[in-house]
Amino acid sequence: MAEKFLSEKNLRFLLYDMLNLDSLCSYPYFEDHNRETFDMVLDTAVRMGKEILFPIFTQMDREPPHMEDGTIRVHPAIRDFLRESGEGGWISAAAPYELEGQQLPMTLVQASMYIFGAANFSAGAFPFLTAGAAELIESFGNEHLKETYIPRMFSGEWQGTMALTEPQAGSSLSDLTTTADPTDDGYYMMRGQKIFISAGDHDAVDNVVHLLLARIKGAPPGVKGISLFVVPRQRIEGDGLVPNDVTLAGTFHKMGYKGCPITLLSLGENNNCRGWLVGEPHQGLRYMFQMMNAARLGVGMQATSIASAAYYASLEYARQRPQGRKIDSKDPSQPQIAIIEHADIKRLLLFQRAVVEGSLSLNLWSLKLVDLMRVAEGEELEKYSLLLDIMTPVAKTFPSEMGILSVSAGLQILGGYGYCDEFPLEQYYRDMRIHPIHEGTTGIQAMDLLGRKVVMKNGRAFELYAAELESAASRAEAIEELAEYGKRLRAALDRLKEVTARQVEAAIKGEVELFLADASLYLEMFGYVTIAWQWLLQGLAASVKLTGAASEADRNFYQGKLMTMKYFFHYELPRMEGPARRLLEADGLTVAMKPALFED
Amino acid sequence: MAEKFLSEKNLRFLLYDMLNLDSLCSYPYFEDHNRETFDMVLDTAVRMGKEILFPIFTQMDREPPHMEDGTIRVHPAIRDFLRESGEGGWISAAAPYELEGQQLPMTLVQASMYIFGAANFSAGAFPFLTAGAAELIESFGNEHLKETYIPRMFSGEWQGTMALTEPQAGSSLSDLTTTADPTDDGYYMMRGQKIFISAGDHDAVDNVVHLLLARIKGAPPGVKGISLFVVPRQRIEGDGLVPNDVTLAGTFHKMGYKGCPITLLSLGENNNCRGWLVGEPHQGLRYMFQMMNAARLGVGMQATSIASAAYYASLEYARQRPQGRKIDSKDPSQPQIAIIEHADIKRLLLFQRAVVEGSLSLNLWSLKLVDLMRVAEGEELEKYSLLLDIMTPVAKTFPSEMGILSVSAGLQILGGYGYCDEFPLEQYYRDMRIHPIHEGTTGIQAMDLLGRKVVMKNGRAFELYAAELESAASRAEAIEELAEYGKRLRAALDRLKEVTARQVEAAIKGEVELFLADASLYLEMFGYVTIAWQWLLQGLAASVKLTGAASEADRNFYQGKLMTMKYFFHYELPRMEGPARRLLEADGLTVAMKPALFED
Repeated sequence: MAEKFLSEKNLRFLLYDMLNLDSLCSYPYFEDHNRETFDMVLDTAVRMGKEILFPIFTQMDREPPHMEDGTIRVHPAIRDFLRESGEGGWISAAAPYELEGQQLPMTLVQASMYIFGAANFSAGAFPFLTAGAAELIESFGNEHLKETYIPRMFSGEWQGTMALTEPQAGSSLSDLTTTADPTDDGYYMMRGQKIFISAGDHDAVDNVVHLLLARIKGAPPGVKGISLFVVPRQRIEGDGLVPNDVTLAGTFHKMGYKGCPITLLSLGENNNCRGWLVGEPHQGLRYMFQMMNAARLGVGMQATSIASAAYYASLEYARQRPQGRKIDSKDPSQPQIAIIEHADIKRLLLFQRAVVEGSLSLNLWSLKLVDLMRVAEGEELEKYSLLLDIMTPVAKTFPSEMGILSVSAGLQILGGYGYCDEFPLEQYYRDMRIHPIHEGTTGIQAMDLLGRKVVMKNGRAFELYAAELESAASRAEAIEELAEYGKRLRAALDRLKEVTARQVEAAIKGEVELFLADASLYLEMFGYVTIAWQWLLQGLAASVKLTGAASEADRNFYQGKLMTMKYFFHYELPRMEGPARRLLEADGLTVAMKPALFED
Repeated sequence: MAEKFLSEKNLRFLLYDMLNLDSLCSYPYFEDHNRETFDMVLDTAVRMGKEILFPIFTQMDREPPHMEDGTIRVHPAIRDFLRESGEGGWISAAAPYELEGQQLPMTLVQASMYIFGAANFSAGAFPFLTAGAAELIESFGNEHLKETYIPRMFSGEWQGTMALTEPQAGSSLSDLTTTADPTDDGYYMMRGQKIFISAGDHDAVDNVVHLLLARIKGAPPGVKGISLFVVPRQRIEGDGLVPNDVTLAGTFHKMGYKGCPITLLSLGENNNCRGWLVGEPHQGLRYMFQMMNAARLGVGMQATSIASAAYYASLEYARQRPQGRKIDSKDPSQPQIAIIEHADIKRLLLFQRAVVEGSLSLNLWSLKLVDLMRVAEGEELEKYSLLLDIMTPVAKTFPSEMGILSVSAGLQILGGYGYCDEFPLEQYYRDMRIHPIHEGTTGIQAMDLLGRKVVMKNGRAFELYAAELESAASRAEAIEELAEYGKRLRAALDRLKEVTARQVEAAIKGEVELFLADASLYLEMFGYVTIAWQWLLQGLAASVKLTGAASEADRNFYQGKLMTMKYFFHYELPRMEGPARRLLEADGLTVAMKPALFED
């Protein structure tokens, strides 16, 4: 199997040359860090990826977790990995010092999660979930909750989860029915069912802490009556842990992402399940959305991880596999050439690279906003916050949807071998497919983008977004090699503005269903424009570095960056035109389609 | 699991109302048949699909074939299915009477294969492969080969295969090295290795007959030195069968399509493997391409089968699954609605239906050419032959590539359940991925279309193709409801002509690598235009039928057809513009990309 699953050189190029991440260290909050400490973090993550995670990538798929004695047995190395993640400070890395965290930039922490995910997506999910759950307690929990749960989650001894979905309420959170009955003892009695809970029960930890949505008795219907609770699998009584009446009712057999169990949980079957309210009653959805938004950025990053690993695996194959000859010199007595020499294979590789590095660029750019929000105030804070709002559905969806096509292109490069399990592409293909589904489907992201983010505050987030693109276009227009691409980005943005205005017309007229009917196409188009911008940012950084590049390897890298940027502008960006044309029609075809017309 | 895997009503609409298949019966060759006998064939295929194939669809995936005692154990029901396929005349259905065939139209036979494939793709592959191999012996073999092999292949007792690929020669057939040494006894001694041989060995038959490419000693290098052989696993000696030194050296573990084994074969390890030449020496590739072309149409059909089964499974789910409310009436005290009421779900279903029925329409239209070639002569024969030539790469690739997206859309409709194996979508998703790979990858199809079919005979095939589209556009322009779509098709064709002319410029200049560098995008664009035309043909037939439709069910069906046609023109056809713009640039970016620039 391929040994390389990501490019450290590329990651550092994005973090330092493009994003100038070390500039964060000039703020007091991050002042203890510098590029050297950042590098140590990345080096250690790569070492853990290579030594612990990648070697068990295939095995975790072939021998997936299974139920045994009321719990789930996961790969034995997960326990070690979680402990090492705890001891090494990975789970607490972004938390503030007062919680024994390290106050590292979230961008860097998520860059590490990208490394873990590229080495082994299923394994990387465990600490990622715990960190998100702990952050929620950190943000909204009282001191008791913080003291009780956070240290043991940070140490990797306890697993964290997010528990939203119920059998009758998938994407429709207003229909959650899990109940919480208040008691006089500071806790609530919980009752209900939760499905699709990732890492919801397993034997690599001593306890599982569910951050769980439920309704307090008498709460209003819909999303306004949802509260957030901590519900541990085992609760503390005296010095020890006792079962908290959270029953593992089953697991789901998934197509991929098999190494991490996904569970069906039953709460309060014996009327003995206790939950602790986090923050205020009926504010649960708002709280959960903090974690959800972080999780959406994380899903985008995980999707990029898988696409990354697939890219390096197919690149290696393409370099080594001899097959055929140049199309204009077919003499069969000449030796075959490596398939990387064929234009169509180079096209597939450029597509993979354009998706992987374009997605990673957007992921990291968005995460830097999270860090800037830590240190900004007033108008600046609002700007970062609005930009993050509008970027989140894109940073989740583009890597997820295009990642599927990217991995598929990688599989195609291997031909029949890509379809067989002696190479890892087929597993990447299966693993990848979860991403447009979990943490809000693509349809949900699309409605979030167009129905909420684009129109909120009178379009202010969209204006800020457009300003970012225009600024990049202007910088590019001043550089000979990039000028054409600056213009192309500007034209794409103009087209996006035109399409956006047309969509908003329907909203203004109050035609809500029509307004959102093609939101998925809008998100698709938005994604192409956004990634073109990210590629231009990379092109700008690469053109600077190329001037001073000393070694041939460096020159190749920066020239490769520029070629991949050009690839994206020439081959992928024009694909925005399909959805654009449709969006300008807005005739409500899918609204008018009667379900009966599917009958035959 | 869903019980419905295809629509018989739709199949009959395409065969009779759109294609007027019964008109074939006016030719002497098909005169014994009529619509009633056609219907009996279809009814029986559906019954076999429902009773034999669909019930074991999941099981064949979960308990795939395995090696045991030097052979491969497949699902025990495969033996019964192959015998029933033999006795029922399915394998011989399209063969002429003199070979004990039934002289049924190939269109109808492949429609049955579509039914089998929708019920169970892996199972349907077995008789399909045998029929193709037998047809090759029928076309080019001598009397001895015909008498020896065809009856037992037609009876389902012996399996047929096509054996091209070798470890060092995937898509590059000129590098085949399997050798054939002539003897004085009318046979050749064979030696070499073949990989990825579907159904290459298994215990549901008494023998396996490989139609195999090899080089006769002293043959010229490259594709001009390849000959076709019959190489049985066991050869006849006296009254019985003796091993023919064809060793099963291994099987491949595939991501999907698991029910049909794919094998690695070693020939002549003990210098005792005999092969019989089919036809003339060094003509093997030409012969094989007859089977290959039929197989490519078959792959397109099988891809459509899987997409069809996935469509009906997700349609059923969408009808039954309550989730959320209309976007403009979100009162949580109101009951949830079925997700088929949501515009975005209808869009996904329309996409699936547009791909499935558009692909099936193209598959059947192309197959009718095969039947017309049986009965046509002179100029007419040449016309059908050229149209079939140019349609084959499209009819193979559009269903394969778009089928992946279509099944993925179906999986998405089921959300998290789509990713889990309690519903069949995840299996369809895995099964489908083989189709852009086998029988010539999409890259190979693209070079075939642009590099050979479009330019051959001075562009005559393309002219004939364009004339078909223009004729359909004219008919549509005369009908009020369809006029707009006639115009849209004409505009799309004009754009395709413009792009084609630009590509051919490079060919005329002798810039072969540049000419073919973006052939895959050309094929993609060609596919959109072609399926738009097929949808217009369906729209024309549906608008006629709608006028006379008596029942509400019929009216719904024809109106649904028209809505799906409109969907394709509004949502999918504009996607041709992305590749079109790129193809008009033709700057050779992928040709110029140096492999070293992928380094980092």
